[in-house]
Amino acid sequence: MPVEAVPVAIVSIGDELLIGQTINTNAAWLGEQVDLDSCRVIKVISIGDKLPDILAALEDAGGKAGIVIVSGGLGPTADDITKPAICQFFDTFMSLHEATLTRVESLFARRGMSLTDRNRAQAMVPHSAQILPNEKGTAPGLWLQREGVHYFFLPGVPFEMQSLYLNEIRPLLNKMYPGKRSFHTHYLVHGVGESMLADRLRGFEASLPPNISLAYLPSPGLVRLRLSMRQFSNAKDELGFEDFALKLKALCAEDLVGEGTDNLEQVVGVLLREAGMSVAVAESCTGGMVSQLLTSVAGASDYFLGSVVAYHNSAKIKLLGVDPAVIATHGAVSREVAGQMAEGIRELYGSDYGLASTGIAGPGGGSAEKPVGTVFLAFASAKGLQVTQFRFGDERWRNIRCSAQMLLDMLRRDLMRFK
Amino acid sequence: MPVEAVPVAIVSIGDELLIGQTINTNAAWLGEQVDLDSCRVIKVISIGDKLPDILAALEDAGGKAGIVIVSGGLGPTADDITKPAICQFFDTFMSLHEATLTRVESLFARRGMSLTDRNRAQAMVPHSAQILPNEKGTAPGLWLQREGVHYFFLPGVPFEMQSLYLNEIRPLLNKMYPGKRSFHTHYLVHGVGESMLADRLRGFEASLPPNISLAYLPSPGLVRLRLSMRQFSNAKDELGFEDFALKLKALCAEDLVGEGTDNLEQVVGVLLREAGMSVAVAESCTGGMVSQLLTSVAGASDYFLGSVVAYHNSAKIKLLGVDPAVIATHGAVSREVAGQMAEGIRELYGSDYGLASTGIAGPGGGSAEKPVGTVFLAFASAKGLQVTQFRFGDERWRNIRCSAQMLLDMLRRDLMRFK
Repeated sequence: MPVEAVPVAIVSIGDELLIGQTINTNAAWLGEQVDLDSCRVIKVISIGDKLPDILAALEDAGGKAGIVIVSGGLGPTADDITKPAICQFFDTFMSLHEATLTRVESLFARRGMSLTDRNRAQAMVPHSAQILPNEKGTAPGLWLQREGVHYFFLPGVPFEMQSLYLNEIRPLLNKMYPGKRSFHTHYLVHGVGESMLADRLRGFEASLPPNISLAYLPSPGLVRLRLSMRQFSNAKDELGFEDFALKLKALCAEDLVGEGTDNLEQVVGVLLREAGMSVAVAESCTGGMVSQLLTSVAGASDYFLGSVVAYHNSAKIKLLGVDPAVIATHGAVSREVAGQMAEGIRELYGSDYGLASTGIAGPGGGSAEKPVGTVFLAFASAKGLQVTQFRFGDERWRNIRCSAQMLLDMLRRDLMRFK
Repeated sequence: MPVEAVPVAIVSIGDELLIGQTINTNAAWLGEQVDLDSCRVIKVISIGDKLPDILAALEDAGGKAGIVIVSGGLGPTADDITKPAICQFFDTFMSLHEATLTRVESLFARRGMSLTDRNRAQAMVPHSAQILPNEKGTAPGLWLQREGVHYFFLPGVPFEMQSLYLNEIRPLLNKMYPGKRSFHTHYLVHGVGESMLADRLRGFEASLPPNISLAYLPSPGLVRLRLSMRQFSNAKDELGFEDFALKLKALCAEDLVGEGTDNLEQVVGVLLREAGMSVAVAESCTGGMVSQLLTSVAGASDYFLGSVVAYHNSAKIKLLGVDPAVIATHGAVSREVAGQMAEGIRELYGSDYGLASTGIAGPGGGSAEKPVGTVFLAFASAKGLQVTQFRFGDERWRNIRCSAQMLLDMLRRDLMRFK
């Protein structure tokens, strides 16, 4: 018998979400976690710090969902009014929770700080709520029920919210709803646009049964493919899903960067480590982003030796050994300079690979011959030098990002021969 | 007579939003823009690519709002079903829009690409919709009305959605609802936690009239303060708001980084340019993030000379002139090495300022004496050298980010003396 995923609604509270001051990363994080717990978010509602709006959202969210997860508005400042809303919605009143007061007091004692009234007020909670202790902050999580629907209230500070979900809500959900109800497989693809990829996968998509679906999740330079199966009934279904996933993977061919939550910089890191190779980077237009991506991965010091951000020409000449005459003849944004930078950084650091970028990120600096978005990316190794010219676009951020990712992908494709 | 801001609801469509694969940046962007147009987002609803859910969300969104802005689900792939939902909700049918077909054809001709059936289908639109031409992509925007509520449908691709809002919806809103209805002032603060800041501002908050409110928007190392006034009636109110804003600004004192949408790297850039000073950076634990932040600002080449990401000790020694004996005695993560790195990079690039970071970002590499999160930040100038030790936290990303911002803020505070 097919098992339906338990429907969950998320309510995010805070004026800052409506006015665009804060991007709702909490809802995205919760959606991902809830899905892992065999539940399924059917709706996210964001509303402001206003009592009637909070009450209406709680009512609405509880309508079709078995579980409602609310975040925000539990903080210590005056704009936080979720607790009064709870008292009204669940017909209860505020009372002091001694254990929370003790916890907040010891938290402050450990940090060597004195407790203010504002902090002490965090121990006042709606009387009928069950308390979910917050190990990362002062505001506790709250669990209440109404008309068979479970409501969880969490602080809006991301790491407090996350810790409460993982330590308190996840064990509860797994006890309430045991068993797995959905599967997802993700493939990350670099170097093919969404439409072109959709054309390549047209036949595959047409072959999918109704309970398996494919989604395209594009970001600058990359597309993440998500293959999902829901409402399956037995182990045979699971095997069918695996077959489709393998077919999809084969269709991605050499454009496939990675699977699951892999990102490009992690994949490159693993390949470098496995091949026992090292890399150094000479960055001009990417301004440090290639280095920053590589070092965002823990343990990067095993393969990343370092870089030079050679923004000024003097650095290109003095540190990377670029020939001033070449800059004078071809310009700093040129095939020749990119090549000398890649060779120069490889020699400077004694690395196996030398990567380099030079280009016009914009908005200024473009010309008819070399418009904004013109970028030369170079790649030096024992095999020799490879320089490629690109024309990304008009947006500075996008040009920097696409250049950095393209360099990492050039490295990835070369490293694949060691697999 | 007070003027109420026009209530707007945003509906974001896409399974990827519910499952946490995509963060809803579109709703944040729209919220900010709508606010500038004297309208006010009262609710954001995110739902999946499911017909009944889309219909229910359109119904719900139109309930209290005068304007509903919907994004997503207009793309060329099979999971996009917003157009069938529109036909059902507005009781209309699909028909070919000739002008859109012509536009799509010429778009592809310009890019030298051939048109697929998938692209051609983008010219099929709900018959009763008014078409908002999309200059950045194939799917046009759609404008329909029902029971006095205006519904705008936009593609989910951020830059297409943004271009349609700015070029088509903004002029319409400004014609429909002339006049300004809300004010916001933002202050960005570095180096004070949210609770401590709230204590400093307690008296100020208590003095605010009911139509002016203060919100705290924290991010790692920074707090953005937003002072908002709504429903004002005349020019006198506006002056009152300015007085409160100036009071708030004075209370931020030397922790104030900037106003409006300023970010730390932009403020530092302006200060460097105005002072005619240059900077170079030696990055170990920050791995390129300081350079990346500085170069994210257009025109950074006026003051940023470059950097060395000295991940490996040999780079610290060879490029920055750090004494190997000092590394042997004190370790690479030490006050002494940070200082020599800052002085070394300043000399190498001949810059006015030399910044340096060395630390243990984690998760590995910590010890009892120097736990994960231990960071030394150094700052060299003609005035001499300043090295400060920090202990940020356990999270790699947060440690890198907080270190990079702290270095920029040290530079900012020093540059203030030239103002």
